[in-house]
Amino acid sequence: MAELRKDPIIGRWVIISTERGKRPHDFVVEPEVVKGGFCPFDPGNEHTTPPEILAYREDGSAPNTPGWLLRVVTNKFPALSMGEKLDRAGEGMFDKMSGVGTHEVIIESPDHQLTLATISLEGFIRVLTAYRDRIAALSQDPRFKYVLIFKNQGRAAGASLEHSHSQLIGLPIVPELVMEELSGGKFYYNYKERCVFCDMIRQELQQKVRVVLENSEFVAISPFAPRSPFETWILPKGHYSSYVDMKADSCRLLAEVFSKTLKSLEKSLGKVPYNFILHTSPIGEPELAYYHWHFEIVPKLTLIAGFEWGSGFYINPTPPEDAAQYLREVKL
Amino acid sequence: MAELRKDPIIGRWVIISTERGKRPHDFVVEPEVVKGGFCPFDPGNEHTTPPEILAYREDGSAPNTPGWLLRVVTNKFPALSMGEKLDRAGEGMFDKMSGVGTHEVIIESPDHQLTLATISLEGFIRVLTAYRDRIAALSQDPRFKYVLIFKNQGRAAGASLEHSHSQLIGLPIVPELVMEELSGGKFYYNYKERCVFCDMIRQELQQKVRVVLENSEFVAISPFAPRSPFETWILPKGHYSSYVDMKADSCRLLAEVFSKTLKSLEKSLGKVPYNFILHTSPIGEPELAYYHWHFEIVPKLTLIAGFEWGSGFYINPTPPEDAAQYLREVKL
Repeated sequence: MAELRKDPIIGRWVIISTERGKRPHDFVVEPEVVKGGFCPFDPGNEHTTPPEILAYREDGSAPNTPGWLLRVVTNKFPALSMGEKLDRAGEGMFDKMSGVGTHEVIIESPDHQLTLATISLEGFIRVLTAYRDRIAALSQDPRFKYVLIFKNQGRAAGASLEHSHSQLIGLPIVPELVMEELSGGKFYYNYKERCVFCDMIRQELQQKVRVVLENSEFVAISPFAPRSPFETWILPKGHYSSYVDMKADSCRLLAEVFSKTLKSLEKSLGKVPYNFILHTSPIGEPELAYYHWHFEIVPKLTLIAGFEWGSGFYINPTPPEDAAQYLREVKL
Repeated sequence: MAELRKDPIIGRWVIISTERGKRPHDFVVEPEVVKGGFCPFDPGNEHTTPPEILAYREDGSAPNTPGWLLRVVTNKFPALSMGEKLDRAGEGMFDKMSGVGTHEVIIESPDHQLTLATISLEGFIRVLTAYRDRIAALSQDPRFKYVLIFKNQGRAAGASLEHSHSQLIGLPIVPELVMEELSGGKFYYNYKERCVFCDMIRQELQQKVRVVLENSEFVAISPFAPRSPFETWILPKGHYSSYVDMKADSCRLLAEVFSKTLKSLEKSLGKVPYNFILHTSPIGEPELAYYHWHFEIVPKLTLIAGFEWGSGFYINPTPPEDAAQYLREVKL
């Protein structure tokens, strides 16, 4: 019938349908309408974006001209801006802060057609490296407490431009989703003196029912209590609380698992819109024994869009054991 | 430019655009496509739904036949079911529970065309009374810890049938959104020895900038740190932690404020899809000094659908002061 399951990190209960579970073909993935037309992220149009903050170029080409392999620019319509002083203020009982921050766009490849499911392994490594390099650079600014990196793939997932890109928001506060994980992780650690993520990874690797794929350093799993069908997390097997400390060799191994995971999702579900978010420790924290960085990938499957927002409560029609099996069995 | 604001109850920070704020006409509200055809909620089709659990009838008509004014039935495709024993179990480090619960549908009126924005005041009172009666009835079952009542209006907000209805889920656990409010409310109370909601209402009634409308017992406000444009909360001015204790006279006053709020939203934004959720204290709790029941209404404005899900972080392009003013100035 159904089962209630609790996320071990933040304690969120979800309802999992364990019978009549929905299979990949039960979901309606609406085809993406290609709009075409002018794209500010295409090579040759560099002058139509704000100037680049970072670019990887192998040919020695000049900034803000073609020749780049990956490019980071300020969002043209930023949610926050750097030109402000960090001011905290009260308004009676309420608390507010000036909108200091940065909102950047990581243009993942010059090729308008590529997505992270089709980009080369080298291309994927560049994207993951850019995340690391930008977090490292922004960590130098004492106004920032957190760098939030996420991707909206497909219009239904919030992407307004079709040229594949990720986003970065540098914030003077730690977002709620990370705060919850930090306090959940600390609570568990106080009791067990072990990292809750490490315990979870250990159990998943032993049980093997929710593992999607793995290599020597990384594992992709369908988490025990996922909010959405085919929700997939990618975690380092070793204990690391901050993404920014990742070595180049590890970056290659992460790209391998990440790339295969996205290919499997697309092969299984079609060109499904999705969001992913990098969860990493706040800037300025030392290595934390109770936190463990990871990516959470959440496919946007239209059938279930409204309910959760409405109820604040998640009903997931696909058990993660089934989802992991579908993803494992996909031929790439 | 932009401002970061903290929700005083759960501590969630949101970004509010205080400049170039979006006005009602900046949002694209896609027209609802009326599907027509057979409707299981229409009078005469009572046999096509599970048998009624509760119905309000003035004419003495028989159960499961026409003549009703409001009808509550079990959801035909329930997320949880009553036929199970409440079993808790571990799976290694993970926690799970059998899917005991109930999933009900409140058919708000026999009229297929009506919505809560157009239903009569008497009709609205019946809906609010049904919520109370069903929570009271389910509170007798010791397996339940919480009764979650919510409404998805419009397909984009998750409604699968167009005939206006609300939903109820009886749960053996307390959902995350309520847990967060309970612990936030308790934290504030420990420090101030006052209810955080009462303090908020006091300040809003004094400042008058975010009040949408009020009567002697209830107030509708645009909260200080809303996740979404035109998010609106309705709260009792007096301190009550449980909805179920509301008297009939108060119910009429609540219906008045609630009805006008929905009419104002519709007049301002068009037939906007929305979700609302009743936040009330868990079953079996005594009157709590640190909790305060309320409704949260969240319009689903298409422009902002994807971002929050992706980032776990809310960017709201309409300051609540502006939203409240638009809603106040609407001619009903």
